[in-house]
Amino acid sequence: MLEQGLRVVVVDPTEVADDAFVASVGGMGAPTVSIEKFEKGDEAYAALRALERHAGVRVETLIPGEIGGGNSIEPMIVAGLTGLPVVDADGMGRAFPEFQMATVLIYGVSPTPAALADEKGNRLVFDGVKDARWLERIARVATIEMGGAAGLAFSLMRGSEMRRTAIPNTLSLARRVGQAVRSARNQRLIPSRRCRETRGRVLFCAKIVDVERWTTGSFARGQVRLVGSDEYTAQELTIDFQNENLIARIDGEVVASVPDLICVLDSADGEPITTEMLRYGFRVCVVGLPAPRELCTEQALSVVRPRAFGYEVDFRPLEVAPQ
Amino acid sequence: MLEQGLRVVVVDPTEVADDAFVASVGGMGAPTVSIEKFEKGDEAYAALRALERHAGVRVETLIPGEIGGGNSIEPMIVAGLTGLPVVDADGMGRAFPEFQMATVLIYGVSPTPAALADEKGNRLVFDGVKDARWLERIARVATIEMGGAAGLAFSLMRGSEMRRTAIPNTLSLARRVGQAVRSARNQRLIPSRRCRETRGRVLFCAKIVDVERWTTGSFARGQVRLVGSDEYTAQELTIDFQNENLIARIDGEVVASVPDLICVLDSADGEPITTEMLRYGFRVCVVGLPAPRELCTEQALSVVRPRAFGYEVDFRPLEVAPQ
Repeated sequence: MLEQGLRVVVVDPTEVADDAFVASVGGMGAPTVSIEKFEKGDEAYAALRALERHAGVRVETLIPGEIGGGNSIEPMIVAGLTGLPVVDADGMGRAFPEFQMATVLIYGVSPTPAALADEKGNRLVFDGVKDARWLERIARVATIEMGGAAGLAFSLMRGSEMRRTAIPNTLSLARRVGQAVRSARNQRLIPSRRCRETRGRVLFCAKIVDVERWTTGSFARGQVRLVGSDEYTAQELTIDFQNENLIARIDGEVVASVPDLICVLDSADGEPITTEMLRYGFRVCVVGLPAPRELCTEQALSVVRPRAFGYEVDFRPLEVAPQ
Repeated sequence: MLEQGLRVVVVDPTEVADDAFVASVGGMGAPTVSIEKFEKGDEAYAALRALERHAGVRVETLIPGEIGGGNSIEPMIVAGLTGLPVVDADGMGRAFPEFQMATVLIYGVSPTPAALADEKGNRLVFDGVKDARWLERIARVATIEMGGAAGLAFSLMRGSEMRRTAIPNTLSLARRVGQAVRSARNQRLIPSRRCRETRGRVLFCAKIVDVERWTTGSFARGQVRLVGSDEYTAQELTIDFQNENLIARIDGEVVASVPDLICVLDSADGEPITTEMLRYGFRVCVVGLPAPRELCTEQALSVVRPRAFGYEVDFRPLEVAPQ
């Protein structure tokens, strides 16, 4: 589509009218599945149209449901199919594996209507749910039946609600991070030791020595084990993940945990290695980035802290690098 | 509701206006679950309202999705909650475990929109499906996640389509059968040997000696084994079931199979014993009833014959008693 001249219009959150309808579009399912099951391309578009039909509205602006992985880019595909603008923001401030972890839902946007669509022509609309966890549960089993990955449209809201509940300017942040990675290409990342754009820091440099992985309940779950290189020699790092990295431990001690970000980067070129791409032998730097403040309120932490994922671990925010 | 004076209006199919909206309401799930998980009472009503919201129409007449089991009576509950009439017909001509086996869908009513609702407030609308089998697959997993039983609204159609695709006058047939059973109460059933209303015949009289049962995929599956009494002594009957009875064999030979009906009646009082109620020691008569002719066309048989349920058995229609 880009080769055919597509230009996606990205607008600042402040430019969206108070009463304009905004919705998230993207994909649901296990990243491990999406490696093998290619998208037809219009799944999220079909979900958006089903959502609109049910709500009796026309969506005017798209927003990524999460910033990270394919779902930060998916709205661009729907933008290409509809001509709609994408707002420079996202509904989560990072990527998380489950619906109820979206800041837009945490801060009061209704979890319904929401819509799921697959490449076979199946389209499902949630007219009401008990709460966002029930949307997660039922949409998850439907996604599994649809083949493990489906297109999604949700968090139908007005422009004013989007400004109150979404995380602003994360698409442009992602672009700046990408530019920083590109400009540092072929340099060693370690020397900088700090990530200006994200206020993060290097936690560990290492080689992956083991990846345990199981795709269950339409999640890519597992643990990766790394042994240190450079100054980290003789130390061991483990990271537990559920689609996204959740808990990092050095020699058994927690050094970073959700909602803070744990990012695994190829140490040669700085490319991110998402959980479904982790392989034995990769040499990586593990970087910790502090979560946006909207994920660190008591209201948000009750949904996104380690205990929400079943870990008996308290959340202790990363020490952040000076800005 | 009846004690409070509810009168349900049942109308003849010919009385429904050509352009009136008609929809099926009832329950989805395993009968074995519904024994333990009582209905809140408004699940099918909630599904109907979600269906109407999505389609932007008001349903004017209700129809049972199947005649047999709770789903022949469920529309009466929704009638009580809405004041709508119920048409003297059903969408299947018997009970079957899966969506695509409904004559209304076999003869061209769209499988969508359809809606599912549970007692927790979760409501799901199918905006489109590849075909009725996909409605079955996705609605089934959603029903399981909802707790194994859910309210259902589907087969939204006009009065004229209902007359073309539904089986007429089956509610009044069910009432006449019930009256016949009641008037024969405490008489032995065998002597009559024929069922005037249904053109059926007694296949076997026996005692249940074994019931194997497993609830899987939200279906009550299993096999019941019976040994003969009276003139059937020394013979053995088995019946395979999936929510409904599918195949009856005497000493290994098929004597009745879907879509013909295999009914197990208590030999003392003539009460039907549905598959989830089968128990060791019951003394029963097994009656075979011929399927309505709408289920015996080539188009219908491709969906409802034994092979559609995975049996390597040809359908041979029951010999029917003279009328």
